[in-house]
Amino acid sequence: MYNKITPQILDELKQISGAENVLYDDESIKLHSEDETEDLSFPPEVVVKPSSAEEISKILRLANDHMIPVTPRGGGTGLSGGALAVHGGICLSMVRMNRIIEIDEKNFQAVVQPGVITQVFQEEVEKLGLFYPPDPASRGSCHLGGNLAECSGGPRAVKYGVTKDYVLGIEAVLPTGEIINAGGRVLKNVTGYNLTQLIIGSEGTLAVITKIIFRLIPLPAHKKVILAAFGSLENATDAVAKIFQKGITPSAIEFMEQAAVKAAEERQGKKFPNSEAEAQLFIEVDGNYPEQLDRDIEQIAGVVEEFNPLDMVLAEDEQKVQDVWTLRRGIGEAVKSISPYKEEDTVVPRANMTKLVRGVKEISAKYGITTICYGHSGDGNIHVNILKDKLDDVTWEKNIDAAIKEIFELTVTLDGMISGEHGIGYSQKAYLPIAIKEAELELMRKIKKTFDPKYILNPGKIF
Amino acid sequence: MYNKITPQILDELKQISGAENVLYDDESIKLHSEDETEDLSFPPEVVVKPSSAEEISKILRLANDHMIPVTPRGGGTGLSGGALAVHGGICLSMVRMNRIIEIDEKNFQAVVQPGVITQVFQEEVEKLGLFYPPDPASRGSCHLGGNLAECSGGPRAVKYGVTKDYVLGIEAVLPTGEIINAGGRVLKNVTGYNLTQLIIGSEGTLAVITKIIFRLIPLPAHKKVILAAFGSLENATDAVAKIFQKGITPSAIEFMEQAAVKAAEERQGKKFPNSEAEAQLFIEVDGNYPEQLDRDIEQIAGVVEEFNPLDMVLAEDEQKVQDVWTLRRGIGEAVKSISPYKEEDTVVPRANMTKLVRGVKEISAKYGITTICYGHSGDGNIHVNILKDKLDDVTWEKNIDAAIKEIFELTVTLDGMISGEHGIGYSQKAYLPIAIKEAELELMRKIKKTFDPKYILNPGKIF
Repeated sequence: MYNKITPQILDELKQISGAENVLYDDESIKLHSEDETEDLSFPPEVVVKPSSAEEISKILRLANDHMIPVTPRGGGTGLSGGALAVHGGICLSMVRMNRIIEIDEKNFQAVVQPGVITQVFQEEVEKLGLFYPPDPASRGSCHLGGNLAECSGGPRAVKYGVTKDYVLGIEAVLPTGEIINAGGRVLKNVTGYNLTQLIIGSEGTLAVITKIIFRLIPLPAHKKVILAAFGSLENATDAVAKIFQKGITPSAIEFMEQAAVKAAEERQGKKFPNSEAEAQLFIEVDGNYPEQLDRDIEQIAGVVEEFNPLDMVLAEDEQKVQDVWTLRRGIGEAVKSISPYKEEDTVVPRANMTKLVRGVKEISAKYGITTICYGHSGDGNIHVNILKDKLDDVTWEKNIDAAIKEIFELTVTLDGMISGEHGIGYSQKAYLPIAIKEAELELMRKIKKTFDPKYILNPGKIF
Repeated sequence: MYNKITPQILDELKQISGAENVLYDDESIKLHSEDETEDLSFPPEVVVKPSSAEEISKILRLANDHMIPVTPRGGGTGLSGGALAVHGGICLSMVRMNRIIEIDEKNFQAVVQPGVITQVFQEEVEKLGLFYPPDPASRGSCHLGGNLAECSGGPRAVKYGVTKDYVLGIEAVLPTGEIINAGGRVLKNVTGYNLTQLIIGSEGTLAVITKIIFRLIPLPAHKKVILAAFGSLENATDAVAKIFQKGITPSAIEFMEQAAVKAAEERQGKKFPNSEAEAQLFIEVDGNYPEQLDRDIEQIAGVVEEFNPLDMVLAEDEQKVQDVWTLRRGIGEAVKSISPYKEEDTVVPRANMTKLVRGVKEISAKYGITTICYGHSGDGNIHVNILKDKLDDVTWEKNIDAAIKEIFELTVTLDGMISGEHGIGYSQKAYLPIAIKEAELELMRKIKKTFDPKYILNPGKIF
């Protein structure tokens, strides 16, 4: 169905982006064959590193004319295989489009290229007293463009929302080569259809994002964190919904079961408070007035007390807050280093989280698999890591698919969805019909066709 | 191109929704010929009041089969003619789908039908300590479904966002009759394309919304309002961006020029503070701790002092806060009662507001027209009301279109958009190409065609 890249096409790519930005040596191909999704590997035929929307337009026109698949790639930190060239073809690496074009302090806006690393952007705006809240665990290496593609979230989403909530507009290139603008530098906008929000979260299948207009907010001056340890998973997850019912919206409320904390301790070579507890909550509040945070913390502690905590630890100073965040951020990598794994990105209404975690443990027991749960409990987004651990290959291969299906079916039964912030990409697409009915899938396919009539942009993803 | 409604189609409509819900007497037709947009009037051939998504599905299939245009209608308070049956056919009135299905206190969510009146919903959730921030001026009679269609905003958007920011999912009926679900009861979701956000703000042209899942937030316990009067429009608008730079996000920051305040005084038969001032800002802060609000107010007052205020008035108690809100909410109606008018819904980055307002006044002078400006200055959303006032018919007819074009061209030059919260609908569609380029319009038209191949749903709008 797709064509292979010919020497002639290679030449044309070199003319468009310069020979030094068209790579097909073994090392480059290998480097661009993988992302952070399990052990998947799909080599592209060539890696192209364009520097402008105009170059990307030319590349896409060329690919569209010759039926060559094109897979856009950011930092390569994706967890659903969205940046993998499953049909070969061109890997469109955005690394050279890494400029912060403008930070507009008067209007609390910024204009950036998609290849800017998330943490770099966060730190630049914070220097000016501004705040970009989305905060994926991979922030040290992921790209803002990839964050838009997967609508990344992270721990602060519970108070501040996810990536889509900070995007006012984009410039993007359609698979057929047209450069379009969607949205604009305004906080309110009903001027035509919301193409911005349609393209965000479309996992690089509808258009290649080439410029992003973000809105920013004032950086809160203070933070406090309380760590609460519990003797059971259920006590921890039950406490979450209750905290919100006090009228408090924490800036993060993270859930970690014992095995997650232990894995992070081992990986980081550090001891953490209460690491023997069955489960912990890590609750952060932020704001401009420290005395207000004290009152929030006091109320949160009052709620936690109702759920038989083993211990509560307050982290007030900046260093202690940083320490617990380092623990939390390291969990994903630590858990995944234990053994081969599958990671599921379940999300349910937060009051259903106890049922989700309990159900996951029952399904684990039934299939003889190990699961480690942790995640953003404030928004009911629990990352379920399924580990091969000591399981033999035959049982693993036989059971893993059925186990994932059951976990997702449970999630949907609990009014949930099968991806909160990682996307469907390649690794979850077989499960999408569990969450989305055929009528909606059909409409999505038609939208895909409207944007990309020849299916050249990131094929093999979502559907 | 479209067909007329035949007696046979009328019979089928009666079978679907019951004879008592299929109206075509003169009074019903007249009532459904207008909304709040200028003096426009377009009679539908029949008004149908369905009670379920299933009925709507049948009505749309019937209309699609027979090429009958269908125009969905909420509270009829739209300001861009979105609910007007410009091609006749069926007016689909959502008044009977007015049930609040569930308010989920544990998860801060609500599920409603689209015909619920916004204020009714606001008040019901507030009884439970929850908060639905979008707050259009027409809240006493507009429908939530209409709010989604136009992505309504209102004064609190500056802190809390607009309608789209509170919608987690919808049920909707496609023009071809399929009932779809988009999104779900979760705070994070990257499970397929974001159809929810594509349909919101599509002004009833892509699908008929039949159920809405909202997220809610805790109701802030306290509010304070400060009214600041200025001797010039520029001092008022210049102060706005400066307030945010202090790290404070007011829950509303409204701008009113003298003529707007005077019109509201006259209409409401009340005197307001400082109504002789050239311009006023009405700044509200909210939160759980009164002493925090005092500190916010103190800082805001400090900023206002830098811009030569004539006076500042603090409204601390609930009654005084209500009084100023009554003034503010009444402005739109009051201004429009002066004479025939056109209302433009300009939005720019807030630091460009001074240039916008000054430019509008220059354009007004050039064309000899009267303009009254007021609106949500925190997000740069200024409603420009162009009044015929004492102008003769010939000059009005000759100049109005050119004046609007110039105002919109100025808006776009200032990085703005031509509708912040009213939509393009029917009344602004001739101006859309000022803000949106042909490549984007073409993509929007293709999306429209994907949803509605025969163009039967709300034809004659946006494009």
